[in-house]
Amino acid sequence: MIPETMRAAVLHGVGDIRIEERRVPEPAAGEVLVRIAAVGTCGSDTHYFTDGRIGNRVVTGPLVLGHEASGTVAALGVGAHRHRVGGRVSLEPGVPCAQCAQCRSGRYNLCPEMRFFATPPIDGAFCEYVVLNESFAHPIPANVSDEAAALLEPLSVGIWACRKAGVGPQSRVLITGAGPIGLIALQTARACGARQIVISDVNRARLEMASALGAASLVDAGERALHEVDMPIPDVLIECSGVPAVITEAIGVLGPAARAVCVGMGGDQVVLPLAHLQTNEIQLSGTYRYANTWPAAIALASSRAVDLERLVSHRFDLDHVADALTLSQRNPQAIKSVVRVDCAVPAG
Amino acid sequence: MIPETMRAAVLHGVGDIRIEERRVPEPAAGEVLVRIAAVGTCGSDTHYFTDGRIGNRVVTGPLVLGHEASGTVAALGVGAHRHRVGGRVSLEPGVPCAQCAQCRSGRYNLCPEMRFFATPPIDGAFCEYVVLNESFAHPIPANVSDEAAALLEPLSVGIWACRKAGVGPQSRVLITGAGPIGLIALQTARACGARQIVISDVNRARLEMASALGAASLVDAGERALHEVDMPIPDVLIECSGVPAVITEAIGVLGPAARAVCVGMGGDQVVLPLAHLQTNEIQLSGTYRYANTWPAAIALASSRAVDLERLVSHRFDLDHVADALTLSQRNPQAIKSVVRVDCAVPAG
Amino acid sequence: MIPETMRAAVLHGVGDIRIEERRVPEPAAGEVLVRIAAVGTCGSDTHYFTDGRIGNRVVTGPLVLGHEASGTVAALGVGAHRHRVGGRVSLEPGVPCAQCAQCRSGRYNLCPEMRFFATPPIDGAFCEYVVLNESFAHPIPANVSDEAAALLEPLSVGIWACRKAGVGPQSRVLITGAGPIGLIALQTARACGARQIVISDVNRARLEMASALGAASLVDAGERALHEVDMPIPDVLIECSGVPAVITEAIGVLGPAARAVCVGMGGDQVVLPLAHLQTNEIQLSGTYRYANTWPAAIALASSRAVDLERLVSHRFDLDHVADALTLSQRNPQAIKSVVRVDCAVPAG
Amino acid sequence: MIPETMRAAVLHGVGDIRIEERRVPEPAAGEVLVRIAAVGTCGSDTHYFTDGRIGNRVVTGPLVLGHEASGTVAALGVGAHRHRVGGRVSLEPGVPCAQCAQCRSGRYNLCPEMRFFATPPIDGAFCEYVVLNESFAHPIPANVSDEAAALLEPLSVGIWACRKAGVGPQSRVLITGAGPIGLIALQTARACGARQIVISDVNRARLEMASALGAASLVDAGERALHEVDMPIPDVLIECSGVPAVITEAIGVLGPAARAVCVGMGGDQVVLPLAHLQTNEIQLSGTYRYANTWPAAIALASSRAVDLERLVSHRFDLDHVADALTLSQRNPQAIKSVVRVDCAVPAG
Repeated sequence: MIPETMRAAVLHGVGDIRIEERRVPEPAAGEVLVRIAAVGTCGSDTHYFTDGRIGNRVVTGPLVLGHEASGTVAALGVGAHRHRVGGRVSLEPGVPCAQCAQCRSGRYNLCPEMRFFATPPIDGAFCEYVVLNESFAHPIPANVSDEAAALLEPLSVGIWACRKAGVGPQSRVLITGAGPIGLIALQTARACGARQIVISDVNRARLEMASALGAASLVDAGERALHEVDMPIPDVLIECSGVPAVITEAIGVLGPAARAVCVGMGGDQVVLPLAHLQTNEIQLSGTYRYANTWPAAIALASSRAVDLERLVSHRFDLDHVADALTLSQRNPQAIKSVVRVDCAVPAG
Repeated sequence: MIPETMRAAVLHGVGDIRIEERRVPEPAAGEVLVRIAAVGTCGSDTHYFTDGRIGNRVVTGPLVLGHEASGTVAALGVGAHRHRVGGRVSLEPGVPCAQCAQCRSGRYNLCPEMRFFATPPIDGAFCEYVVLNESFAHPIPANVSDEAAALLEPLSVGIWACRKAGVGPQSRVLITGAGPIGLIALQTARACGARQIVISDVNRARLEMASALGAASLVDAGERALHEVDMPIPDVLIECSGVPAVITEAIGVLGPAARAVCVGMGGDQVVLPLAHLQTNEIQLSGTYRYANTWPAAIALASSRAVDLERLVSHRFDLDHVADALTLSQRNPQAIKSVVRVDCAVPAG
Repeated sequence: MIPETMRAAVLHGVGDIRIEERRVPEPAAGEVLVRIAAVGTCGSDTHYFTDGRIGNRVVTGPLVLGHEASGTVAALGVGAHRHRVGGRVSLEPGVPCAQCAQCRSGRYNLCPEMRFFATPPIDGAFCEYVVLNESFAHPIPANVSDEAAALLEPLSVGIWACRKAGVGPQSRVLITGAGPIGLIALQTARACGARQIVISDVNRARLEMASALGAASLVDAGERALHEVDMPIPDVLIECSGVPAVITEAIGVLGPAARAVCVGMGGDQVVLPLAHLQTNEIQLSGTYRYANTWPAAIALASSRAVDLERLVSHRFDLDHVADALTLSQRNPQAIKSVVRVDCAVPAG
Repeated sequence: MIPETMRAAVLHGVGDIRIEERRVPEPAAGEVLVRIAAVGTCGSDTHYFTDGRIGNRVVTGPLVLGHEASGTVAALGVGAHRHRVGGRVSLEPGVPCAQCAQCRSGRYNLCPEMRFFATPPIDGAFCEYVVLNESFAHPIPANVSDEAAALLEPLSVGIWACRKAGVGPQSRVLITGAGPIGLIALQTARACGARQIVISDVNRARLEMASALGAASLVDAGERALHEVDMPIPDVLIECSGVPAVITEAIGVLGPAARAVCVGMGGDQVVLPLAHLQTNEIQLSGTYRYANTWPAAIALASSRAVDLERLVSHRFDLDHVADALTLSQRNPQAIKSVVRVDCAVPAG
């Protein structure tokens, strides 16, 4: 039985999240209603929570955060035929228009009319129920847990980065930043065959996790500059720190015909080593979300080629979303926090 | 000390291989002299041995077979600067002209002036010493054995096939033929992230090996047609059987936008399901040897992402090359035979 | 004012087209109603008319043929916002589901739920009004005539073929078949920079047209085999004849790393020169309709880089659709027939 | 008869070019001796002449400038077999090692051992005879003049830029900088099918030439910022100005999934709009010379799809190389200066 109302964690202003009772939404034609199980926290959620904005995207009204979510299909809208009630799903949190030039070309992540969870004014998943276009709720096999299913979203970020960078067995990969995205990119690059992977960060705990996950070499960025590191000249950069100085430095150590993919948002204006990029014909691009990644994400997670659960360092319930969003500022050991909507979480 | 003469296994006619004493060759400018350690046997060697020809390539004079080889650098030609004497190397057995349009475009495998080991009239590696352009002798790390180093050549075939097919974590792969190349393609596809891999053959021993190496599903081609198999519709075919009927059948089960790569030589004229290929925009190509694969091959072998030694089912010494070449005709359990040139092999 | 009924040319059986009065359709949400101006005739229309089927697509009920159409927007469905009434449009005649894996990847031409004009049981455009998803009605500039606008559809076929073949200034192109599609492919290849273009056909009138449109060399296929022609070895084949023997012969003359694109439907089972394809790593694919081609088609037609009107050899009115569909069987001089729905055509 | 000595214009220091008598070089094995006909002047020649350096490449001894050259084969080295004496050729001025990873991958322009004309310490072509690897002297047809043949080198730069940017009929192209390279890129983009081409510069004479050569729209960069221009949102940028502020501004007006190719050298450190690049997944790269472009260049020049002679605004003889190199600083009407080595030039 679907209740009439549900609990939702609603952002009302900087640092102000309140639990509210809201009506359970009804799925429109082609949509499904999903009962949320688990929701990962992401740096962008934290930004909205602590700053009220990301660049020119400003929170102007009440907003539900959370866009890394999994759950169970609770009801079908008219015409929805790809699911059965009770099926477990991972949610792809952005629904594009499906009609514009970008959508028609397979680049739906660049759709200007994209409606994306937890991006103002679209509500996200820190609540008990959401509705979603049925094609963006992806059925998952039994061996993918609810938490791993939620984290197929950041895994998609890693897959998209590796795809853009053309990572394969021959790649010599440099990853800058060993936060959740960097650690996922590391695992994904390995799953694509790369073995020569160097990763840098200033956080020792994260570097140790990177080592455990298969990085060939670690760089403590507080101690050594990249150009001082003895490593095979990288031909792939997956930039996950978003720190301008790191971006500049990292591109500078790339070799001929390298591909540099900026995943971390590095700011509006960044100084880049253009002459080095030109004389080496380095190809620089950014990733903006992802497109068509869930099938690969499901394959990698269900085969354990990428271990998502290992990244979950802390769990919270819906009443403690604010704690979840600020944990990594307080605790350098934290990697990834998950909010469990569907069950109690032992106090940590 | 390099001796003046060496032993070589020389093909003098169909079924007629004789051990001869030959002068050790001298490396020309830019070449290295390599003392051979191990040499894999390949179906093409067997073809020359049993038929005296492959298509319009005919053995007309004495020929040394063998093109999957490893060894140790024994001497440097004038100007050779990429090696040191004593270094262990895997041999890339074809040296192109480096000047023609194909070479200049990075497709040196298609060079019309290619000089390739064991392809008439170029001698191969079933002998104690060979000379080779130094850029085609690839240094290998200590954790790659001599036998694995020899088998980087067939691994290159698998890498090239996966590259042409664009295999990645999202791929649903069908491999037809579970001989050495099929089993290597299977491992390579897995190393590139693919997990949904179906493999077919008529030989139960080979299917069992495929299962042990990670195939998700096996098809005994003697019992079931491919279109009767319950599997996700493949979007990649790596055809390793070379059997015309299998090629036709396998292309027929591929889905939209699939890539079919024919590795096994299937004959001059083959009936193909053109309408199916057209309406699904399937992309069909062949692989002809490989280009720029050794760095990836070394990475995959040294990280054990691909296990080459496991494929070596039998070993022979230089006096028993003929036995090595015909073993798989006599023994359905045989996978890959290797000729050890540098050491004695216990009678098997 | 939109009338309540309209005239439509309806196929009732093999060779049986009748003019009927039908209700003018109403545009659904997101659709536009288009008053048809001109409709090109295509070989597939002729096939349905003379055979009642194409492969396993069978005409089982009354069907309106015609899928190369232009017109004027007459009314907007609810929510349609990309058009104004009175705007001139070229129709992209297939509307995909926009949700499946193929659609989401930008390959909407491979959508299994595609609804395509004049493909049973979907009606086409040999009538006065049609409805269409507004995103598939493409506004055209004033300097593209109604007839050229209708022929953006076959131009799309040519663009798609050139895209798949990677045609550029460096290409050496062989086009087999100089019918409307071959002649459009010729012009498109030239517009993409290719100048070394050889075209073959058995019809002298068509070869002469090809010469006038810029073919560098003509082959009368009734007189000479392709391998006897003195030409630079082609690295692109655009196969437009659909004749199995021609396909086989043409692939056989391609050089290393060539791309062969089969546009003409060549039959379920065709004998292909596989060994030649393999040893040259020729990439063979088919085109199935097209995706995302209208912007390029509009650019090429409005700049006169491709001259579509020159291909229109005959015009008919709606009462003479049957004559239009069979003309090329009677008249070897005919290139392309267009049905004018919106105006009288002088008896030809 | 080949003389023993020849005249050469030799740079001895900043602003100091002297005519000297030098020995005619002898072609080594695989080389040809070429009698020079015409040599274009390039901004890099001017830089070496006026500054003595480009970045960290410093002129430390006598140097012959000039790398855009044509001529006639005068003698063949041992083993050279691709030419006959008397054949007219266009020179590709950089000869790579042909053995390294970049060369083997078809990216020989990135070869670290490249020997390139007029790049210290390699002499260039402002002299009567040069030697060159025979594969880098490209035979040209009779309808390509000596001057056009010399300018196949900058045409190669334009082709390489269009290739990297994927220019085709659908492209909306922005070219910043209407100097010789910008004007060649304009023509090349048109030859690849693009019609929507906007070009910007501060020089009115160059904009007028751009208009005559087919630019759809001109931007006087001294009057208007790019974001104020009413144009279709570009999806290709070919940056030919090398001005940092222009690079930054131009990338900022690109649309989703655009490709930006920096041809003009813009300096070691440039501020780029990274967030815009990331959220639009713009792909930024540079071109460094070119690879495998001469066949396309010959096709475009001989078919007049690109008109190179029209760019030649001034001619000089070998005694006036210094004047040629500094003309554009003195004369805003100058587009491209050519040095005629083989014949007298009327005083201009």
